[in-house]
Order: sequence, then C-alpha cells, then structure tokens
Amino acid sequence: MVTMPNWLAKRASLTPDRKALITKEETWTFRKLHELSKIAANKLAAIGIKDGDHVAVLMGNRPEFLFLLHGLEYIGAVAVLLNTKLAVYELCYQLVDSESKLLIYDDIFEEKAADIFTSIEVKKVRLTDFLSIEEGNADIRSEWQLDRVHTIIYTSGTTGQPKGVMLTYGNHWWSAVGSTLNLGLYSDDCWLCATPIFHVSGLSILLRSVFYGIPVYLVNKFEPCEVNDAIEKQGVTIISVVSQMLMRMVADLGERKYPKSFRCALLGGGPAPKPLLEMCREKEIPVYQTYGMTETASQIVTLSSEYMLTKLGSAGMPLFPAQLRIEKDGAVLPPNEAGEIVVKGPNVTIGYWKKEDATKKNIIDGWLYTGDIGYVDEDGFLYVLDRRTDLIISGGENIYPAEVESVILSHPSVEEAGVVGKDSVEWGQVPVAFVKLFDSQTATKEDIIAHCKERLAKYKVPTDVFFVDHLPRNASNKLMRKELRKWIR
Amino acid sequence: MVTMPNWLAKRASLTPDRKALITKEETWTFRKLHELSKIAANKLAAIGIKDGDHVAVLMGNRPEFLFLLHGLEYIGAVAVLLNTKLAVYELCYQLVDSESKLLIYDDIFEEKAADIFTSIEVKKVRLTDFLSIEEGNADIRSEWQLDRVHTIIYTSGTTGQPKGVMLTYGNHWWSAVGSTLNLGLYSDDCWLCATPIFHVSGLSILLRSVFYGIPVYLVNKFEPCEVNDAIEKQGVTIISVVSQMLMRMVADLGERKYPKSFRCALLGGGPAPKPLLEMCREKEIPVYQTYGMTETASQIVTLSSEYMLTKLGSAGMPLFPAQLRIEKDGAVLPPNEAGEIVVKGPNVTIGYWKKEDATKKNIIDGWLYTGDIGYVDEDGFLYVLDRRTDLIISGGENIYPAEVESVILSHPSVEEAGVVGKDSVEWGQVPVAFVKLFDSQTATKEDIIAHCKERLAKYKVPTDVFFVDHLPRNASNKLMRKELRKWIR
Repeated sequence: MVTMPNWLAKRASLTPDRKALITKEETWTFRKLHELSKIAANKLAAIGIKDGDHVAVLMGNRPEFLFLLHGLEYIGAVAVLLNTKLAVYELCYQLVDSESKLLIYDDIFEEKAADIFTSIEVKKVRLTDFLSIEEGNADIRSEWQLDRVHTIIYTSGTTGQPKGVMLTYGNHWWSAVGSTLNLGLYSDDCWLCATPIFHVSGLSILLRSVFYGIPVYLVNKFEPCEVNDAIEKQGVTIISVVSQMLMRMVADLGERKYPKSFRCALLGGGPAPKPLLEMCREKEIPVYQTYGMTETASQIVTLSSEYMLTKLGSAGMPLFPAQLRIEKDGAVLPPNEAGEIVVKGPNVTIGYWKKEDATKKNIIDGWLYTGDIGYVDEDGFLYVLDRRTDLIISGGENIYPAEVESVILSHPSVEEAGVVGKDSVEWGQVPVAFVKLFDSQTATKEDIIAHCKERLAKYKVPTDVFFVDHLPRNASNKLMRKELRKWIR
Repeated sequence: MVTMPNWLAKRASLTPDRKALITKEETWTFRKLHELSKIAANKLAAIGIKDGDHVAVLMGNRPEFLFLLHGLEYIGAVAVLLNTKLAVYELCYQLVDSESKLLIYDDIFEEKAADIFTSIEVKKVRLTDFLSIEEGNADIRSEWQLDRVHTIIYTSGTTGQPKGVMLTYGNHWWSAVGSTLNLGLYSDDCWLCATPIFHVSGLSILLRSVFYGIPVYLVNKFEPCEVNDAIEKQGVTIISVVSQMLMRMVADLGERKYPKSFRCALLGGGPAPKPLLEMCREKEIPVYQTYGMTETASQIVTLSSEYMLTKLGSAGMPLFPAQLRIEKDGAVLPPNEAGEIVVKGPNVTIGYWKKEDATKKNIIDGWLYTGDIGYVDEDGFLYVLDRRTDLIISGGENIYPAEVESVILSHPSVEEAGVVGKDSVEWGQVPVAFVKLFDSQTATKEDIIAHCKERLAKYKVPTDVFFVDHLPRNASNKLMRKELRKWIR
C-alpha cells in the first residue's frame, strides 16, 4: 500500500512560483492554487464535510472547480463529478446512488438544482454561497494512500443502468505516469484543457499539472479560434481533443501552421476519421491517437510519436504500465483477428460503486473487459473497430443505446425500441430511434422525443424516431442493432 | 499490490528500434537488448537458476552486466550486486550471507574468484564460460509485482556489520518516476553511466533507460576526456557524477563550454565542495545536487533546476513521491535546526536481508532513519551537514569507520581503535586510524595496514595509523570521532 504526500501541497512546496492554472483572464501559481484549495477545504469543513464523505459537483470548466477538487482531496472526501449536460432525472439518480452528502453547483445551474431539490432530499449549496461561507478548520491531510477512492464518475453501459466508476488516487497517479513516459515532459509544457473537467479526460489534465509541475490552460467553452490563439501565442504545448474539436481547429487554422512548440494533440473519444488524420499529417500537426475510458482513468493505449505516420489510424500500444489483449470466447486471439479489447494496469478502476456484480463481470483478475471490438497487428498496435456494444459517440460524449432504449420503453405506448448512431458532420454521430408501438396505442415522434427530453441529457435524445412493425432480432431474440444501422442507410 | 508488465520486454515492444545501450565500440537497440537478455535468461535456466534464487554478480561496467541483470529479472531471480573493489574476505561474507546460489564473475576477477572458492563453497561461473553455455528454456515472466525483491546491495553501517539492502521492483520504479518528475524527460535524452553498476547510482541509470525509452551511454572506466567527448559529440544529455569526477571533467574542459544539449549533471555521493559548485555556475554547467543512499534506491532529495543558483550548496527537496523531516530525540525539528535526516517514500527499501532488528531500528512507520545530520531551511531545502555517523566518503565510495575499526580490533595486539576521514585532494577523503595497543603488545603501522588489506577493500584501508595512549571517549564511554578529527588537524 503506497503512501504519497498530499499532491498539491507537495507541488506547492517544490515549485511554488511556477504557473499552475491559466485562463484568458488570470493566472495562478501553485502556491496560490494550494492556498485557495486550503480555503476550500476549510469551507467544506465548516459545513460538516468529513473524511470519506461523498460530495457531488455540478460545474463547468472554471477555476473554482480546481480549488474544490483539491479541497476535497485535502480532507479526504470523494468527488462525485456530475455531467452538466444530464437531465434532472439522471442527476437525481446519480446523487442518490452515490450517497452524496452535499451537492455544490455552479450558479448557472440554479434551475436544475431547484428541480433536483423538489425530487430528492440532498444538501446543496450554490457556488457563490459556498465561496462566502466562513472558513472552518479542516484537518488537512499531509499524505494519502493510493488505494483510496478519489473520484466517482458515472458511466452507462450495456445494461443501460448508470454505474459509478470508482477511481482511486493510484488510478489517477499511474495514468499520469504512463502518459509522461510516452509523451515526455518538457520544462515549458503547458496543457490546454477544453474537455469537461467532469470527464476523466479533463480531470486527468488537472492532476497531471500537479504531478508534472506544469500549467493547465483552462478553457470554459471550446472555441477553435481561442484554442488556436492559445497554441500560437500563449505557449500551449499539449492539448486533449476529440475529433470534432480538432476538425474545427484545423478549419480555423486555414493556411497557417502551428508553431514547433505545439508538440502534442492527444486525440481521444472514439475512432478518428482517416481524412482528418491525413489532413493533420499534411499540416504537420503532431496527433497522438489514444484509446481510453472512464474505467481506465483516461488513456490506456496511445500511439507514440515515432509511429504517428506509419501506423496512421491505430490507437497505438498500451502505455508502459499497462497491458492489452484481444479475446473471443475466453481465448486470447493472435494478431489481426478481431475480438473484445481487454486491458490491465494500475490505472484500471477498482470497480463500480455498490455494483459488485457488474465489477465482477467486467474486471477479472485485474483484466478489464471493455466490450469494445478491435484487433492488434503483428507489431502489437491496436486498431479499434467498434466501441462498446453499439456505443454511440456524439461530440465526445458516450451514449449507450440501451440507456436510451430503456427510457423510450418506459413510455406507455411503446412495445419495442432500438437506438443506433447515425453519422453527423457536426457531432460525429447522433442517436436515432426505431420504435414499435403496442397495437392498440398511438404516439407521435414528438411524443417520444418529449418523453426522452424529460429523462435524458439533451445529447442522448434521439434526433429522429422511426415507427416500425418489427425490430430485427436474432435467434435468441436479441436486438440486432447492426441491422438497424443498415436500415438507416 | 501493483503488477507491471516485464519492463524490458514492454519497452522493446513499444520502441524496439530506439537505442538502448551505447558504448564507445557498439550500439544496441531495445529489441536487441531484449533478445540478449532472453538468451541470458535461457542460459541461467540451463544452469538451474529458478524464480526466487539469489545470484551474485561480480562485474565491472560492461554490456554483459545489463543482459545478465535483465535476464535475472526475466526469470525472477534476485541480483546480488558485489562491489568489485571488495577484498575476498568481504566478498565471501556477502556471498554466504546473501545465500547466493551462484556467482557470475567477470574474467578479470579470476584470481579473486579462485580465492573465494578456496574459502567458501559456492557455485560459480566465469562470464566467458557463461556466455558459451547452451541455452535452456527459461519461463520468461510476462509481468511482475512491485513488492518483489529485485536487487540486494550490501552496505555497512554504524555497527560495522555489512547489511544486504533489499530493493524491490517498486523501489526502483518509484525512484525513476520521482526523478523524471523533477528532471523532465526529453525525446533526445541520453544518460551517461560512469558510476559502477554494482552501486545503486549506476544500476538506477540502466533501469531509467528502460522506463524512459532512452539510451544509456556506458563507460567502463571513468576518463574525463572520454566523458567530455560523449557530452560534446555523442549526444549525452544527463550524467550521474560524484564531486571528484565532476572536478576532473571541469579541469579537462579547460576554456571550452558544454553544448546546450547537456542539461543535467546529477551530483551525488556526499556533500559537494562549494568552490566546485561555483566553478560550475561560472561555466554554466547545469548541476543538480542530490542526496540519496542504497536504502533509497538512489536519489531521494534533489535540487531542482530553478533553485540551482539561489540554493547553492543545498541538496534540494524530497522528490515528488517522497517526504523528509529532521528529528532529534524523537521530536520533529523546526527549520534551521540540525538533527537526523529522516525520509519516507515508495523508493525506500523494505529492509535488510535477514536483519530484522536492523530493519526495525532503521525504518519506523515507513520512515527511514538515515543517521545523517542536516537541517532544512525555511523553504524546505535540505542542507546535509554530516553523513551517517562519521561516514567517510572516498571517491564516491562509502567507508563506515565502525567496519574498519572492527577489522583493526581483530588484530591481537590492538586494544582500541578509532577511524576517521582525512581530507584528500584526490579522493575527497581517505580513512586514517588511531590505535591503542595492549600494554604488553607491540605492532607497527605496517602490521596494522597489512592486517586491514587482507580483510578490506583497498579504499577502506587506512592510509595512516597513529599510535596513541588513549582514545577520546564521552561519559558513556562512546568513542568521540569528532575529537579524533581535531587531532588530525
């Protein structure tokens, strides 16, 4: 059981004057970040938050998110990170399921918070109010053990039931170390965070910053011109993106080229379109394709720089501490044969919160069964063919068809439902639904969509609904979404 | 309990074509290094070495040392690294105490090996003979757990009894990670190893090379002009040195300056003379002073680049995963008060082989009591005042007075003995002895020195012996070596 010193306190003692956080408006050093996090910890203590408590955060990308996150670390509370795009119905489920003692929410989500308050009983505090709380006297931890839970982030899955992924201090630490052994670490590094902090993609940038002693350039809302400016003029050297973001950045860049100092565009969130990769190659943009998920605390497979061109389209090889194999029917497959992607490493979650069955089913002897389909070539490079059982990735957000289907099925007129992704220039994919109504019932497309809107985050709501006589099922009566995708075409 | 993939096999799969090892004569890629290590593992298997066996290695800095070390890792054997400068008497002690199943020795130590063979029974094989063994079929491990013992390296101590420091896979791993978070990791890095591989200083360079995917530039015998050439023309960016080495490099450099690519001279092995540091500052040599010991798997406290000039003379701050405090009489001291240096971190040894009492005495709740004296300033920077209870550091080698004294005391004519370090331009320090003979006995200086030469490595043999009527002792009759040092002056 490894013990480490309090991360940010340690960093602040090592390099207090280095920049920790940069926004368009302001800059914070590690010393300042540490001070503000101590204050946050003291405020949390003042309202009774203790070691081991779960505290939910509903917040966009803003500096206070960092102070809060570190403040929670300081007192040993677990951060439950809520996706701000979720519907009230979904938020309530996660708040209750996670047994959160408190919800801290950004003022801009006042309305959502009010709706939550009418549905469930949870102590909540608006950010502005939190900031004006008088400081208590927190017992700030000087060290912590890596096997303790740091964060809970919800993810759906094949069952449609959202599950809280528990990420330990060690999961985050090992993820960051694995990344740096692949990407290197330069004294002038600066990592731009335009992906949400409530996702492991954004969160991991904040933590790497502390481990590495480099600044996070924090962006509230992704705007290609702002991001390009940060790269071209503000010294950003690394950025985490999904395809849609990179595409818009390249479009905004036009005829210009990025400076040499820009050394890595870490491209995750689903398979990248080949034309985009080829365009980046032409413009000499150093793209590192990567594969990961909440359960692996971000990247677990990344294409290292020397193979960027020769292995175009591959997600790369498992990071130094990690391992990968392709399985089918319990057997490990040889190269070039497609099967389920199975990964192992100290960055892999210890399991799902209060979901022991799902944990046991998905993690066997330390190996995580991702549900994703892919193969490795003869050199060990991973090619991802299909994300988790029909996972739809829309603008970098995961949508599990089963989750959307179960909401549609809860409509009294619906007998059967099937949801699949449809290609979208803007979002990569968007969900569409096929619905079979009960013989005696009627419902319109608008009825179904309205039903979904009440219960699902906007990005999960089908953009179209097709009424059908039957849904394609196989011999064992399982829905064949592959067939549905053909129907779209 | 963290499991990692086989380090070198992993590195060879990630970046097979990168350079792993460079000597003046030849270059090996990680693919090649992996192949040769597999061969070494197969040969070890052929002569019956199994998972868990202890295998002693008596070898200078040569490529085969690497193949052997990794070969031992591959089959799960523990490497017992023998200091080639030790006397036969000392080597026999370590071979027997470590329960080594086999001694593999460099041909140049044929004579020493023969003497060992006449003293104790141990299976031994000369390197040339080892290389010609037909390969067996080793069960090469694909992964290992970080809590397993990787290396045993002997160190003496206040008791004079050499103790085998057990370093786990995790100790080495965490040491390397802590180092890179301080020094950074550049794609063109190349680390020169001119310190002995049988010391943790050299060994740690070989392991970092595998973790980082950078080459080791291996030097058999330190020659300032060869090392300077490697820095100026062969692309070496980092080098580990002790003061004497750096001094000779600077002398050889003359009016020239090092290229910008040379980014770190990691200076360990005892307090550095201020004039040397000032000279380096003038010549813009990027010196990183560091403090560590076998028990910490090399560095644990290092002066990071931004404080090189403002904190000249300090050993720096504990690396990111590590902690430090100064204690006296069981209390933690405030800044600027001198006391014992106590350190903690995942790079700290799990203990001494078969010496449970010494382990319990020196490591309490994860904190290692170093026996060294120092203080931290108000910013947390460590200043080492005095190494472990009168430790003498001669040319980077540790000499424990108690060990030399116990050898002198074994001479039948000697009643009391005290050993201290005397300043030496060439070696930093050399040991000298004060001896009180039994009233009835006589012995000459030459008698005492000859007695020591038989039983001690040459560098530990006193360069001078002074016969005295009494030795300075305190109220509790403890030898006051401080007084002896005054006598020298």
